[in-house]
Amino acid sequence: MNNLRFTTYLTSNIGTDKAVLEQLLSHCSIREFKKGEFLLSQGEKCRYSFFVERGLLRQFSIDDKGKEHIIQFAPENWFMSDRESVYFDRPSSYFMQALEDTVTFLLDENLFLELSKSDTAFLEFNNRLLHNHIRHLQRRITQLQSATAEERYLDFIRMYPDLLLRVPQIFVASYLGITPESLSRVRKELARKNR
Amino acid sequence: MNNLRFTTYLTSNIGTDKAVLEQLLSHCSIREFKKGEFLLSQGEKCRYSFFVERGLLRQFSIDDKGKEHIIQFAPENWFMSDRESVYFDRPSSYFMQALEDTVTFLLDENLFLELSKSDTAFLEFNNRLLHNHIRHLQRRITQLQSATAEERYLDFIRMYPDLLLRVPQIFVASYLGITPESLSRVRKELARKNR
Repeated sequence: MNNLRFTTYLTSNIGTDKAVLEQLLSHCSIREFKKGEFLLSQGEKCRYSFFVERGLLRQFSIDDKGKEHIIQFAPENWFMSDRESVYFDRPSSYFMQALEDTVTFLLDENLFLELSKSDTAFLEFNNRLLHNHIRHLQRRITQLQSATAEERYLDFIRMYPDLLLRVPQIFVASYLGITPESLSRVRKELARKNR
Repeated sequence: MNNLRFTTYLTSNIGTDKAVLEQLLSHCSIREFKKGEFLLSQGEKCRYSFFVERGLLRQFSIDDKGKEHIIQFAPENWFMSDRESVYFDRPSSYFMQALEDTVTFLLDENLFLELSKSDTAFLEFNNRLLHNHIRHLQRRITQLQSATAEERYLDFIRMYPDLLLRVPQIFVASYLGITPESLSRVRKELARKNR
């Protein structure tokens, strides 16, 4: 298990206490999803936090008019979950889908809570994960409320530096909350400025 | 202290273990803010979670063009904080302002962490607070991405049933991410439907 991104991630975030790491790993299962496959559908209950070992996920909602709105991408080393659905045991508002063949580790919420109770390092790790999640969501709101199309695009590049080549333009536009035509205009304008 | 909203809130959320409640209360200070007074300015570090005992707060950002965007209101029994700023010790992106004369309890982040380590009931309470925060932020994003002006307005009424009479229309419009003119149209349209 030593050459996995997940173990490296855990070691650098929780520390090197082997007992805790082994307890955690013994409760995680691995699951692979083919490109296009769904991990979760709107209306289902989300059971896990998914850690992306390899591949790429997207999380999105579909509105009443059938339009998709992407809330998050998760490439390698990212977590994806609907914490609301998991925690409050409610049907999810989101779909999760693999955009590439993807390998994930599945962590369940009880595990988070139980390990937090028994291990301080894990408690602090989970606390950091939750605050990081809040940070991302707050930034997303500020972006949607007030950023121009160009600012949103530049934010996207900073947040997901290697995704431009992996994600179809139409999904990037959906994430940014702009039309594909606006995205195309922004890209041309930036290319012109940087010439 | 028994007739306070804060103690009732804590008792119903953490339980009636007097030792824990007293430990918590002994670390909280009370602060009053006059109508219009700021609890936090953009660029400052946020130090606390504020529990609203009486009154009303708003949290907002100001964009490059000087336009305000309200992210949250907090009437009685709500918490308001910039968890990102507190936790990561970063300058805040937000202002917090009292919209009425307001009495708050101040809880600091170390207290949350220390009590979580020493007391399981508090750990679960803090975990619930964080997940509730995530739930609100996720809904806000979905609302901003995909809801019509009317849906946003109806959501607002569900979320803050008694605020319509306490908050100026211009602030409601700012929270909803629509113009005051759109808000006025939506209200007229709903009044017409319900006639």
